[in-house]
Amino acid sequence: MTEPPKTLSWMGDRLRLLDQRKLPAEVMNVDCFTPEEAAEAIRNMTVRGAPAIGVTAAFGLALAALRCGATDPSGMRNELGIAGEMLRLSRPTAVNLGWAVDRILKAADIPRLDSVEDVRATVIREAETMAAEDVEINRRIGRHGLPLLPDGARILHHCNTGSLAAVDYGTALGIVRTAAEGGKKVHVFVDETRPRLQGARLTAWELGRLGIPYTLITDGAAAFAMKMFGVDLCLVGCDRVAANGDTANKIGTYHLALAAKAHGVPFYVACPVSTIDMDCVSGSDIRIEERDADEITRINGIAVAPADAVVWNPAFDVTPADAITAFITENGIVRPPFGPGLADAVRKSESDRLRIPRRLRRG
Amino acid sequence: MTEPPKTLSWMGDRLRLLDQRKLPAEVMNVDCFTPEEAAEAIRNMTVRGAPAIGVTAAFGLALAALRCGATDPSGMRNELGIAGEMLRLSRPTAVNLGWAVDRILKAADIPRLDSVEDVRATVIREAETMAAEDVEINRRIGRHGLPLLPDGARILHHCNTGSLAAVDYGTALGIVRTAAEGGKKVHVFVDETRPRLQGARLTAWELGRLGIPYTLITDGAAAFAMKMFGVDLCLVGCDRVAANGDTANKIGTYHLALAAKAHGVPFYVACPVSTIDMDCVSGSDIRIEERDADEITRINGIAVAPADAVVWNPAFDVTPADAITAFITENGIVRPPFGPGLADAVRKSESDRLRIPRRLRRG
Repeated sequence: MTEPPKTLSWMGDRLRLLDQRKLPAEVMNVDCFTPEEAAEAIRNMTVRGAPAIGVTAAFGLALAALRCGATDPSGMRNELGIAGEMLRLSRPTAVNLGWAVDRILKAADIPRLDSVEDVRATVIREAETMAAEDVEINRRIGRHGLPLLPDGARILHHCNTGSLAAVDYGTALGIVRTAAEGGKKVHVFVDETRPRLQGARLTAWELGRLGIPYTLITDGAAAFAMKMFGVDLCLVGCDRVAANGDTANKIGTYHLALAAKAHGVPFYVACPVSTIDMDCVSGSDIRIEERDADEITRINGIAVAPADAVVWNPAFDVTPADAITAFITENGIVRPPFGPGLADAVRKSESDRLRIPRRLRRG
Repeated sequence: MTEPPKTLSWMGDRLRLLDQRKLPAEVMNVDCFTPEEAAEAIRNMTVRGAPAIGVTAAFGLALAALRCGATDPSGMRNELGIAGEMLRLSRPTAVNLGWAVDRILKAADIPRLDSVEDVRATVIREAETMAAEDVEINRRIGRHGLPLLPDGARILHHCNTGSLAAVDYGTALGIVRTAAEGGKKVHVFVDETRPRLQGARLTAWELGRLGIPYTLITDGAAAFAMKMFGVDLCLVGCDRVAANGDTANKIGTYHLALAAKAHGVPFYVACPVSTIDMDCVSGSDIRIEERDADEITRINGIAVAPADAVVWNPAFDVTPADAITAFITENGIVRPPFGPGLADAVRKSESDRLRIPRRLRRG
């Protein structure tokens, strides 16, 4: 097993991001020195995956604090607020961006921080804590999800939810990894995940490096794979989960969930609690990002459709709660009815924050 | 409206094929002088679409007859038989190849043909007749399908079934075209259809030239399009229909049919009778072609997945009869139970062959 390169690394004065747009052909990093550069890296998908973009936004605020010219804490808080809004808007669907921004701003707002140095140090420390927590959260998701994967499991997976979608380890693929590391035999059917091909470019690459066997398929072949090979479960991540369990995730997830339902295949969502948005009552409250036509009409810069094609390119879709078997959170598995279970998971994380080991909280 | 270039044209001494692998970036023709070249053009998808490859195989036998060095009819028939087997095997799933080869060989076998010139002329004439009949069949499918498209219809379409999939006009898209030509407003959601992108490359291009409004989407967005926009019907073609109605068509069709079923959207298959294989009792008798990994791992020659990725690339899938609302054949609409209706459609075509206008039979 070879660990993939780091999704993101805080370098003290800059944020280093693995450029996921170039994988697997090129393994290259991009350094962000300003919050604007961090926001642009989120927007143009240098970094993607809900947990990863949340932590990137947190470090974006660390960059804002570092570059800030304010001479008093309230001036710095003001600048952080402006940078936070910019980062929050860089992509609209994943809730982690807003969650990360809110958490950093809250940390910066503690009244006892009475110098710009204190605010700056606190912001950087909080971002580092969030990065460390993200890995721990993923490992917990892996442990909770483990019993759902029988030995010999055939798993159908959409998009990328591995270490590249997070600070490290991964959410849905973290469960697969936990199973493989524990000696279970698993096989992953990897949806290529058009238009950005995160399955083909990132998931296949990660699984190959981890020595976990997989078969790459087109998105349209998923239902036929269920029929021909038998699939034991679907495993996906999520970008925003409404209070009732309706789930926004990468486009194609809903299509896959319908195929799973028709085949009686359980459909599991790996879900860090930070992705649950109790302010969204249901999926219809979730704003779906629509991206540029050329993500579909051009591949690697080459036209694969008429230049004037009219395109609908939603980055995400919403899978209704009734097509989901369970959520796997760091606080345990949430089964239907999802409302109370998701609310419990959120409450547990809020009270746990007070008990997170010092080691982790300091990053 | 601009007519797309001809899918195939018999030039008297060669078969001219539009190279569909290069569309829409380049509009180029390839000339086939031998049956081997025709078989290779089918295999490498220079020409594709069940009706088009059937007629290409017929002209492949015309090329065999032209190039044949035999001095007596039985020697020529022998060579035609060998060329026919080669053409039949060039792609395994679409039944039209075998149907076309059988029909030409049967025409060549008529005992009164007592010179190589007679056999050769008969083979060429029969191939020309089949080409002319194909257009007439598509126009009839268009007329029969017309009542199924309400004015203002939102149609979801997979792969390419337009003039490029046939000699001209198209099957499923022929119905759309008939509706548009008759003044109905229609809008087509075009599945891009990975891995070969026939939707993006061919269907979008054809619809654009015909002035029929469309929206290009990824295959995985089809279910979400049904949810967000409302889709009135799905329209697809077919490559082999078993006697019970189970239908092999481009990979992704089955997945789409499940989404349609979940949304209560009617799922129609445009089906020239030549595509019905009464020798296949059900879908499990249909052999599914698997194509090279690099159709998925490389796009326009550029890697989009690890070079050593393990890939499953079935060119087709099988949609079970119970996910299909109706077949639209040149002999009318066939509704469940499909067995008797499909058998009737086949019988009607067999008896009609005796009554096809001389004009058409002479090509």
